[in-house]
Amino acid sequence: MQALGKRRWVIAEGYLPPSSTGETRQFVSHETACMLNTGDVPAQVSVTVFFADREPAGPYRLTVPPRRTVHMRFNDLKEPEPIPLDTDYASVIESDVPIVVQHTRLDSRQAALALMTTMAWSAE
Amino acid sequence: MQALGKRRWVIAEGYLPPSSTGETRQFVSHETACMLNTGDVPAQVSVTVFFADREPAGPYRLTVPPRRTVHMRFNDLKEPEPIPLDTDYASVIESDVPIVVQHTRLDSRQAALALMTTMAWSAE
Amino acid sequence: MQALGKRRWVIAEGYLPPSSTGETRQFVSHETACMLNTGDVPAQVSVTVFFADREPAGPYRLTVPPRRTVHMRFNDLKEPEPIPLDTDYASVIESDVPIVVQHTRLDSRQAALALMTTMAWSAE
Amino acid sequence: MQALGKRRWVIAEGYLPPSSTGETRQFVSHETACMLNTGDVPAQVSVTVFFADREPAGPYRLTVPPRRTVHMRFNDLKEPEPIPLDTDYASVIESDVPIVVQHTRLDSRQAALALMTTMAWSAE
Repeated sequence: MQALGKRRWVIAEGYLPPSSTGETRQFVSHETACMLNTGDVPAQVSVTVFFADREPAGPYRLTVPPRRTVHMRFNDLKEPEPIPLDTDYASVIESDVPIVVQHTRLDSRQAALALMTTMAWSAE
Repeated sequence: MQALGKRRWVIAEGYLPPSSTGETRQFVSHETACMLNTGDVPAQVSVTVFFADREPAGPYRLTVPPRRTVHMRFNDLKEPEPIPLDTDYASVIESDVPIVVQHTRLDSRQAALALMTTMAWSAE
Repeated sequence: MQALGKRRWVIAEGYLPPSSTGETRQFVSHETACMLNTGDVPAQVSVTVFFADREPAGPYRLTVPPRRTVHMRFNDLKEPEPIPLDTDYASVIESDVPIVVQHTRLDSRQAALALMTTMAWSAE
Repeated sequence: MQALGKRRWVIAEGYLPPSSTGETRQFVSHETACMLNTGDVPAQVSVTVFFADREPAGPYRLTVPPRRTVHMRFNDLKEPEPIPLDTDYASVIESDVPIVVQHTRLDSRQAALALMTTMAWSAE
């Protein structure tokens, strides 16, 4: 399939809840950038994370293989530095080939989880 | 009415929760691609499902009749193969005539259900 | 302010939950099309509702006054006919001047409410 | 990084829930416009709030510093007037340089919080 999408995406919301109801990976509060590479070559992706009161962190680098999706958890980012919990952030996701990016949060701080999602904004 | 929409849509998020609170069809955890065909001819739709670690599944084929909406549950897909539960996926939805696609998840794993929705991303 | 937006919007998802936890208007399960008219003349709006297995209903007519927002509940539509509960639907919203439309559902069937929202899709 | 985004964004939904479960800032019901300025000069932002039955309020003014995100709570707006609770509203966000805007609500009126989010609509 043709490589669908854009090379640059923006997510203005970002927040990792500092607590959870449930200890398994499925129920820990988290935020995800779901990336889809429909094309036939690997997508080299670079994520920059912006904050309210300090210079941006990153770039965080990952690869989305051809014809694969990667649901990247911001909680899992380690290099060059982890994203702090309970802190407002935002992100820009850049790829060398077109991809599509969707943003999701699962918040299980209270006794029943909450979900939200939106397509990221595709910069031209 | 004119056929509104686009011929190709992308949903980068996808996840079928493996459990539910409630046994009726309304309360079983599910994910839906809501498709609307406002035009006067049937839309022949083909869905391709992408994964993190294997080649894509599909195409899944369905028809959206003229002036009708189909709220297709990914849980209901059977041919050529069912979508596994508790597994990250993504999807591309292609139609021979313009349609509009919106993505929704109902997650009832915990004691009160959670919902999320977004318009799919319309490829050009 | 200039009239911002588009003249035609599409919402592919639609479902009025048939039950609620809470009896006040705020907590009854409902679905809303939030419309904003930033311009200086009234927006004459026409809503058409599509179903899975019958011809579309409508048009439902309303006015969004200049510099006003109307959060129209699909539950409140009466003429030419109410929208049935527990039934999949979709909608097209047409206006004679540009408006912006956002779709929201509040679902209080279970003990804690769930919310979802997305911008509608703006047809060109 | 280049200044990504648009200069004018619209959010048609708006509602500040009048009650909360939890008293800390994190759990008080609120609505946020998350703004990201990826560029190298400050973004001077002006927010206008529209209602169902009165003239618009504002402009509310704030600055998003270069390479920073501001998650602005509508609950926090004070000048020229606070946004009333339990009242339908909508908003237009204008900036002198490109920014990206995403809309989120956290509703904790009932015993487990609900979340919703969407990218705002970027006017051309």
